[in-house]
Amino acid sequence: MEIGLIGLGKMGGNMRERLRRAGHTVIGYDRNHEIADVGSLTELVDAFTSSPRVVWVMVPAGDPTRDTVKELGELLSDGDVVVDGGNSRFTDDKINADHLAEKGIGYVDAGVSGGIWGLKNGYALMVGGSPENVAKVQPFFEALKPEGDYGYVHAGPVGAGHFAKMVHNGIEYGMMQAYAEGYELLTAAAVVEDVPGVLKSWQEGTVVRSWLLDLLVNALQEDPNLDDIKGYVNDSGEGRWTIEEAINHAVPVPVLAASLFARFSSRQDDSPAMKAVAALRNQFGGHATTK
Amino acid sequence: MEIGLIGLGKMGGNMRERLRRAGHTVIGYDRNHEIADVGSLTELVDAFTSSPRVVWVMVPAGDPTRDTVKELGELLSDGDVVVDGGNSRFTDDKINADHLAEKGIGYVDAGVSGGIWGLKNGYALMVGGSPENVAKVQPFFEALKPEGDYGYVHAGPVGAGHFAKMVHNGIEYGMMQAYAEGYELLTAAAVVEDVPGVLKSWQEGTVVRSWLLDLLVNALQEDPNLDDIKGYVNDSGEGRWTIEEAINHAVPVPVLAASLFARFSSRQDDSPAMKAVAALRNQFGGHATTK
Amino acid sequence: MEIGLIGLGKMGGNMRERLRRAGHTVIGYDRNHEIADVGSLTELVDAFTSSPRVVWVMVPAGDPTRDTVKELGELLSDGDVVVDGGNSRFTDDKINADHLAEKGIGYVDAGVSGGIWGLKNGYALMVGGSPENVAKVQPFFEALKPEGDYGYVHAGPVGAGHFAKMVHNGIEYGMMQAYAEGYELLTAAAVVEDVPGVLKSWQEGTVVRSWLLDLLVNALQEDPNLDDIKGYVNDSGEGRWTIEEAINHAVPVPVLAASLFARFSSRQDDSPAMKAVAALRNQFGGHATTK
Amino acid sequence: MEIGLIGLGKMGGNMRERLRRAGHTVIGYDRNHEIADVGSLTELVDAFTSSPRVVWVMVPAGDPTRDTVKELGELLSDGDVVVDGGNSRFTDDKINADHLAEKGIGYVDAGVSGGIWGLKNGYALMVGGSPENVAKVQPFFEALKPEGDYGYVHAGPVGAGHFAKMVHNGIEYGMMQAYAEGYELLTAAAVVEDVPGVLKSWQEGTVVRSWLLDLLVNALQEDPNLDDIKGYVNDSGEGRWTIEEAINHAVPVPVLAASLFARFSSRQDDSPAMKAVAALRNQFGGHATTK
Repeated sequence: MEIGLIGLGKMGGNMRERLRRAGHTVIGYDRNHEIADVGSLTELVDAFTSSPRVVWVMVPAGDPTRDTVKELGELLSDGDVVVDGGNSRFTDDKINADHLAEKGIGYVDAGVSGGIWGLKNGYALMVGGSPENVAKVQPFFEALKPEGDYGYVHAGPVGAGHFAKMVHNGIEYGMMQAYAEGYELLTAAAVVEDVPGVLKSWQEGTVVRSWLLDLLVNALQEDPNLDDIKGYVNDSGEGRWTIEEAINHAVPVPVLAASLFARFSSRQDDSPAMKAVAALRNQFGGHATTK
Repeated sequence: MEIGLIGLGKMGGNMRERLRRAGHTVIGYDRNHEIADVGSLTELVDAFTSSPRVVWVMVPAGDPTRDTVKELGELLSDGDVVVDGGNSRFTDDKINADHLAEKGIGYVDAGVSGGIWGLKNGYALMVGGSPENVAKVQPFFEALKPEGDYGYVHAGPVGAGHFAKMVHNGIEYGMMQAYAEGYELLTAAAVVEDVPGVLKSWQEGTVVRSWLLDLLVNALQEDPNLDDIKGYVNDSGEGRWTIEEAINHAVPVPVLAASLFARFSSRQDDSPAMKAVAALRNQFGGHATTK
Repeated sequence: MEIGLIGLGKMGGNMRERLRRAGHTVIGYDRNHEIADVGSLTELVDAFTSSPRVVWVMVPAGDPTRDTVKELGELLSDGDVVVDGGNSRFTDDKINADHLAEKGIGYVDAGVSGGIWGLKNGYALMVGGSPENVAKVQPFFEALKPEGDYGYVHAGPVGAGHFAKMVHNGIEYGMMQAYAEGYELLTAAAVVEDVPGVLKSWQEGTVVRSWLLDLLVNALQEDPNLDDIKGYVNDSGEGRWTIEEAINHAVPVPVLAASLFARFSSRQDDSPAMKAVAALRNQFGGHATTK
Repeated sequence: MEIGLIGLGKMGGNMRERLRRAGHTVIGYDRNHEIADVGSLTELVDAFTSSPRVVWVMVPAGDPTRDTVKELGELLSDGDVVVDGGNSRFTDDKINADHLAEKGIGYVDAGVSGGIWGLKNGYALMVGGSPENVAKVQPFFEALKPEGDYGYVHAGPVGAGHFAKMVHNGIEYGMMQAYAEGYELLTAAAVVEDVPGVLKSWQEGTVVRSWLLDLLVNALQEDPNLDDIKGYVNDSGEGRWTIEEAINHAVPVPVLAASLFARFSSRQDDSPAMKAVAALRNQFGGHATTK
């Protein structure tokens, strides 16, 4: 079947490949014309030989996605479906869906997990939208998802897919931080002489075994003391939104928030807050401050 | 080969079975004589037909373990080895080892993970002790551990095994709390209509896939809203020790600590701290308090 | 001088009184006509005998404030000034200011602290706006603020006042929680026999002395074990906004966030997250769950 | 009245002065003989002209205090009283008291707050011990404490004084961190142009007014951007013990723990934990790491 795919970067490029391997016809567009199949969104829409058309948007969240959806609203027709597979905030979905609905165009949001391993293992898909719109995209979901019973859910109406993916990433932050704190404690205590070996021993038969643990073991095999990596960690939006949504719903999320704050701290050369604490200690106790 | 095993409860009983399936001769003792092979520690020690003797202690941490080790010190001989496979605090290990060393008896500490699944899948083992003492226990470690390259580490000298297991459990607290907070957020937002389905979709192809996630999916299949479970969570020592060791080594562990505190809170009918906050709000703002 | 004051509740009523004691003429309006000086906003605006008119809005944040500002935009004239002294989110200020600016009406936001003690001690004021608009309100700020050098700041342009007040409240959450956790620990340890006495001893000569401490001592004198207060704590917006702004600016705020989450937890009969943790422990360890 | 005082450093020296101003005779000993009144503990004990003798120990916690108490046990007699006014862990108190009790010597523990301001304002005192032993020290407590009803509590039996002081310091950590996080947020948002002015405005009429706030305002007047202070903060024991005692009593202390962990982080050039998180992100997402 035919699908349009906008955005052929690290994720989109591999998804095109996985869709093609499954026998689908992918009409790919990217700002980088060297990797694109067509030269514009107009060409992309015109290249379809059948309808309804399904166009999958895989561009950065925020303005790029919003602008692309708007442009597709000009080009597509009643009954077509747009899928936003990017990392959009779920609150954008309703806006996009309402905009397209004015012309009878359907909208489906899809949270996509899998990273650079997705081409081989399949992409886990969390999907939001009406049953009829989701049905139009289903053949492509089947091609992208991992084999077997797992890796796909129709989570609810428009927005549910990105919401589920957002929570997935929030949990991811928390899990990574849990492993990381444990790792640091192992390295801090002299009694444990083989830290990479301890983590490796956990890969089977333990409560903490996971894919993330496997990756940490890999990283330590390449660089046993992580000497080549700085403790500087970016965050990409979903972690922040998770905390904000938790606040909206009065859900206590101490672990997820602590994980986000640890990333913020990791990026500070010096901490204004800790300057203030040092200043206070100096004021009341005459404690020396370090400059 | 022959091994003595003291403590035949949920863990010890299954370990006896797994050792026997591997062809070892297990001399089991338990306070509950109905499940024991011998009637006393003296009988256990006398039942060995060869030496050195290896005796594995699998009783509750604290006094029961300490008392058992002391009694074994009276009964065993130079060259024998005692293994503490219970959940002892690693600081007990040096004391036990020094006590036994006076009579030339070796000591090995083994952190054991696997729970009720260990009989089938094997027990992950984190081991501390001298190379020569560990070597005497090695055949039994081989029988207990999962198949393949994983599930076993000789982490360092005496204490390293229990330290590694302690950190394992600390991480476990953090991971469970991360999933739990994400789960609660999913249930709090109306947009996600199929929460169990979302968690199930994560089991393949995602960053958060793990054995713990599989278990949570199982639990939700049995009880989709967890209606039959109260949010009351005990803790068993390792989580506390992890935080205390982190403090000893000045390692920041916000996620692991938050996970422990969440358990403490879960067990309180009312919170004295929050009473104090409510009292303060009433004092300065005239905010109504709830009784 | 003349000032209009809209909203004569717990805060506004006392502010009217304090302004009058300072010799100002206050034209007060409230939905509750029994306590109002005029029957409508139109009457309020018409009651002024001089210009420019200053109208202080002291109604609940959100729609009530936004609607009142809009209505004043219809009634006031070029050169008049509206002050929002309520607990509005600072992001509303720019919107309100721009709306009024179309008609040449000025806008000033004022964060007001002091609660039920303000009538006697004065209200601390954090103010945002252009120098010329702030100047028009200055006589009233002087009347409302505490005596002396303190209790007033022109923090910056429109929005700065509410932003500063928001942070004030965020800090308040953290301080209260710090006292509360310490209080609970004192009550938990048998060795301290006179908990109210300990807190009272801290009121002079210590690092933790503060007005909040004084209030906690008061509360404990009235009810030494806080038996009459439930540990159920509401939150009113500023605490949430503080965390959200911290996230916007990538500022790590573990203490402020923990304080907010403790309030969320205090309001839960049971915790879905801790249900999930209990379910997990049951799955892997056969730990009993409580129902 | 006569009192022996051992340790004449920053705290002890000022306490000698405050006791003398109140008319007491202080026999001071210090390792630094230039500031001492006597040359040895033996001389100190012999210098008393009446009995029972009260000797106040004001040396660093841990071995120095334990050794001094032991030595005093050799020199003092039945009915004398030793006061430990240092920052000892409360668990040491029972040990010291039992040791001295063998010779009929009394023991009182006194948590002392006040820092470099104590000479002028008085020292807040939290005292543990038997009523009869406390009574023997009472005249000196009266001289050291601030004037008025506050600044002194007999909190309970031996250990209660240091326990109360420990909790005081734990709360202090939390309060300082609350102010510090709020301060950082104020500096991060462009809308607030006068951060020191905002903090100054809070000194009267607000909920967050306190002595610590006054000190922070002082610090900002000397150095408005805290340019001369590094965000590097030590901790001195009580903060750690507070968390450990909270864990012992299953008291959730998220704010106090977060404050301690922020200090740990402030002292790290790079974070092993965040290296691990960066390594994980690189493994699963191909995210660049910073070196």
